[in-house]
Amino acid sequence: MNADSTKSWQAVQAEVLRRIRDREWKPGELVPHEAELARELGCSRTTVNRALRAVAEDGLLERRRRAGTRVALHPVRKARLDIPVIRVEIENRGLAYSYSLISRAEELPPPAVRARLQSPPDHKMLHVLGLHLAAGRPYALEDRWIDPDAVPEAREADFSRISPNEWLVLNVPFGGGDIAFSAVEAGPDEAEALDCAPGAALFVTERTTWRGSRMLTTVQLLFAPRYRLHTRI
Amino acid sequence: MNADSTKSWQAVQAEVLRRIRDREWKPGELVPHEAELARELGCSRTTVNRALRAVAEDGLLERRRRAGTRVALHPVRKARLDIPVIRVEIENRGLAYSYSLISRAEELPPPAVRARLQSPPDHKMLHVLGLHLAAGRPYALEDRWIDPDAVPEAREADFSRISPNEWLVLNVPFGGGDIAFSAVEAGPDEAEALDCAPGAALFVTERTTWRGSRMLTTVQLLFAPRYRLHTRI
Repeated sequence: MNADSTKSWQAVQAEVLRRIRDREWKPGELVPHEAELARELGCSRTTVNRALRAVAEDGLLERRRRAGTRVALHPVRKARLDIPVIRVEIENRGLAYSYSLISRAEELPPPAVRARLQSPPDHKMLHVLGLHLAAGRPYALEDRWIDPDAVPEAREADFSRISPNEWLVLNVPFGGGDIAFSAVEAGPDEAEALDCAPGAALFVTERTTWRGSRMLTTVQLLFAPRYRLHTRI
Repeated sequence: MNADSTKSWQAVQAEVLRRIRDREWKPGELVPHEAELARELGCSRTTVNRALRAVAEDGLLERRRRAGTRVALHPVRKARLDIPVIRVEIENRGLAYSYSLISRAEELPPPAVRARLQSPPDHKMLHVLGLHLAAGRPYALEDRWIDPDAVPEAREADFSRISPNEWLVLNVPFGGGDIAFSAVEAGPDEAEALDCAPGAALFVTERTTWRGSRMLTTVQLLFAPRYRLHTRI
């Protein structure tokens, strides 16, 4: 490549990708320092940095603060998922949103929920079941457990007016959580709530959220058939 | 809060979250400048910046370069999804990986695939169907279409030795893509390939990837029953 001080970071990115693809830089190998690359390619160090970051975001380089930048042994694509509250997701599609509370009780959770919330067997939890609707049609069934010791305000919340999904986002800032996506066949109650055939394939998300070491809540969201979750890579 | 120059960014984050939750800072409102917050809270501007970034990553603040930082009107949680090649995903679970090519042909794609690849009706595509196995058991069925004009090297690739999934990651750096997650009922051929009952609920990912304005490839990955995709928020 010729020295060219107006070289764009995209041009540098293309050259970096070429070297990785052509195995001039081999998987696992350290790549030259930014300053060295800047000299070699005749551009600024900022431009090299911007290009390497883009390639790293694509998962083809691994950058460690002190250890330098290596060609990834196992390239990993990264996707970013935005998870809005369900009301906003529906309104963003231009549809009218409504929510219908099905049941609310303090009760002993089943073993699977207890395991997710790491709670003792005799600890009662707030169990809230409700349906999110889009343009009057079932959209997602929210099956939520909240630890009332960790979130005492939840006892006073009026879940006939606001879904736990939205109430928690607005009232309980939390530190972290994990999330799983899968598919299940609709059971008879779920099929009735979501107005679909029993056995229909449903997209499911399960989320458990905590603050520090304290588990706050776990939820299963069962979406009506044909729901698709979109994102970009 | 007392002035305390050793205040951690986590303490500042907690204070920011408290103000949002208690509506001292209302949804949509501009928050004070970093320098002002640093003075008020008695910490460095770097600490304030680190804290605001963390809260923004949680989706509760919106930061715009020139317009300043606002309390989000519609909080959105952000999750990051790592998408490794399937071989690595399986090996990371400690299972032996294998891949079996089912078929390979250049043929006219069905309308849904044509739409995703934005190709004319008479344009033939490379169609590769194969099965990823974990410990000898079906893991995911890869139904892949590649535009051979956009990726001519694919014509020479030996997809009986390497899956298109892995070959593409290693050979074709691409600029972007979109991805959708959903659930479908297994059809008879799919059920046979994945060794499950017809009608079983399967988790599906569909990805279409491009470089510039050029569509390269689209794939449907059908995972065997009980597959779960995990991530953190």
